[in-house]
Amino acid sequence: MRFAIDAMGGDHAPKEIVLGAVKAVQAFNDIHIILVGDERRIREHLTEEDRIEILHTEEVILSTDEPVRAVRRKKDASMVLAARQVAEGKADACVSAGNTGALMAAGLFVVGRIEGIERPALAPTLPTLGGEGFLLLDVGANADAKAEHLLQYALMGSIYSEKARGIIRPRVGLLNIGTEEKKGNELTKGAFSLLKDADIHFVGNVEARDLLDGVADVVVTDGFTGNMVLKTVEGTAMSVFKMMKTALTSSLKSKLAAAVLKPDLTVLKNKMDYTEYGGAGLFGLKAPVIKAHGSSDANAIYNSIRQAREMVQNDVAGTIKKAVEQHNARQDSENKGG
Amino acid sequence: MRFAIDAMGGDHAPKEIVLGAVKAVQAFNDIHIILVGDERRIREHLTEEDRIEILHTEEVILSTDEPVRAVRRKKDASMVLAARQVAEGKADACVSAGNTGALMAAGLFVVGRIEGIERPALAPTLPTLGGEGFLLLDVGANADAKAEHLLQYALMGSIYSEKARGIIRPRVGLLNIGTEEKKGNELTKGAFSLLKDADIHFVGNVEARDLLDGVADVVVTDGFTGNMVLKTVEGTAMSVFKMMKTALTSSLKSKLAAAVLKPDLTVLKNKMDYTEYGGAGLFGLKAPVIKAHGSSDANAIYNSIRQAREMVQNDVAGTIKKAVEQHNARQDSENKGG
Repeated sequence: MRFAIDAMGGDHAPKEIVLGAVKAVQAFNDIHIILVGDERRIREHLTEEDRIEILHTEEVILSTDEPVRAVRRKKDASMVLAARQVAEGKADACVSAGNTGALMAAGLFVVGRIEGIERPALAPTLPTLGGEGFLLLDVGANADAKAEHLLQYALMGSIYSEKARGIIRPRVGLLNIGTEEKKGNELTKGAFSLLKDADIHFVGNVEARDLLDGVADVVVTDGFTGNMVLKTVEGTAMSVFKMMKTALTSSLKSKLAAAVLKPDLTVLKNKMDYTEYGGAGLFGLKAPVIKAHGSSDANAIYNSIRQAREMVQNDVAGTIKKAVEQHNARQDSENKGG
Repeated sequence: MRFAIDAMGGDHAPKEIVLGAVKAVQAFNDIHIILVGDERRIREHLTEEDRIEILHTEEVILSTDEPVRAVRRKKDASMVLAARQVAEGKADACVSAGNTGALMAAGLFVVGRIEGIERPALAPTLPTLGGEGFLLLDVGANADAKAEHLLQYALMGSIYSEKARGIIRPRVGLLNIGTEEKKGNELTKGAFSLLKDADIHFVGNVEARDLLDGVADVVVTDGFTGNMVLKTVEGTAMSVFKMMKTALTSSLKSKLAAAVLKPDLTVLKNKMDYTEYGGAGLFGLKAPVIKAHGSSDANAIYNSIRQAREMVQNDVAGTIKKAVEQHNARQDSENKGG
């Protein structure tokens, strides 16, 4: 398997990206990596050349660039070139920690949508108390969504969880403001009736307050709400940790006790670190495109490559394609029959 | 000032409700309280009768009742009777820790909307790191909202923060998935242009991850998104505390250190306890209706009564009425002028 990695995207590029790629080739002997970016800067950190090649380019998409325009104009940007390797069959998947909007645009325009998928979805895995995590989609690929889009998110999320994460009959929940069937806004009411009849293990509405308890393996919602929930989880966890830090350094006595607890608190903080589960997958494209967190270190990049490898190995994109074809064919015959 | 309190609503009713009311009359010598509910059960906890009267009823709305139907059918339920005291001028405001949907229905049907307000909004105050808190509205009075509703939420929230909380020129933010003006879904794009021109201190879009840092004093959003954010904050904070507890009791050494830190950690947990700021106000009604948290203890009820008192004392409902009249008059003249 071959992976194209945008070596210049993210807060700690290229160093941590290169180190993550090295870690990945050392861990998996069936992968080959193409690092796309500034060759000189990449070489500064490259300690391993076996199964790693460099595709040199000096153009870069910045986090401040307007996404769609950047992808259209900066045709040789490291991110765009990485996506092009996938489109041209030179790589099986690509990974970037750069500008999220631009990566979504590159995925859509360069890699391309699976036929029958109306809207690709951006899907990170969030932490749960039990450590198993859950997939949330969409978190912002599309701010406005229709009920039919949520159904496709459910199908894609279900397939990913089963194929790439090995979860048998993944429980799919619809994010809503109450668990009763009739609760919600027009979108969720419409989506509920579609999900009920779909070929997935639908467990009904799930509430935001129960997400980290692991009420479902896959949680579907529109991109606006998903983005809100994702950022609220991040913001709240960060705030609680900040407050904890203040509380634990308020006196000499608490400082001493906190020092004893430091290993436990680090474990706790790591448990909330969702880069452990890999990056956010952009689902519905012809090949896996993974958005690693902007603040990714080598380990987060390694996890994103591992995730891309699992998606390729288990043909997630091909399975989604088949499922959508089957679903649409069934829909057509039902429409004819009725 | 006279307050009608639903003595039978909430997880710890009537005991904690009665104790909270007693605490309030002891703290404020300008208030009179009507406790609505089962006289015998209320008397079990009533240690003070000065400026407290009981309005006896045996009917109760349960948390499992369908809200609108319950309010229509159970005309003598403690919550409905409390609202009726306000409608009949026998009380200036009412407080309940019972069924949220039913209280919203009682507010709408019994107390009544301010003319010109299209949709009342449910508005809790959430904690911030600095301790000042921020008002979030709507959190679920209306799942679907239009841009004009968000404008009215902004006006109401701004007035409440200035009048009842004493914040000068409260900063009003629009909850969105990015800070740039063009970001968001159709609703937020429409709301942004209305808020920009409104007679409030609009600070633009605010992101969910920055809410607890105190980026704004008033944050407006549709009821579906607001409910999600509220429950995600609750759920995440609760999960982090649960994980902390597990981490801090993992070994004898950590247990000992945790014992030393217990007071600091309790302070931390209390800081996240938003019942300190009072209950959630139902704004846009002819008189204040306060929804206290379902798990309210005496102190939370006391804080809700204090909040109702501040709203009555500073005529929040009257000021909202005037502001809406002025806004609508200006709109009319602009429409005629253009």
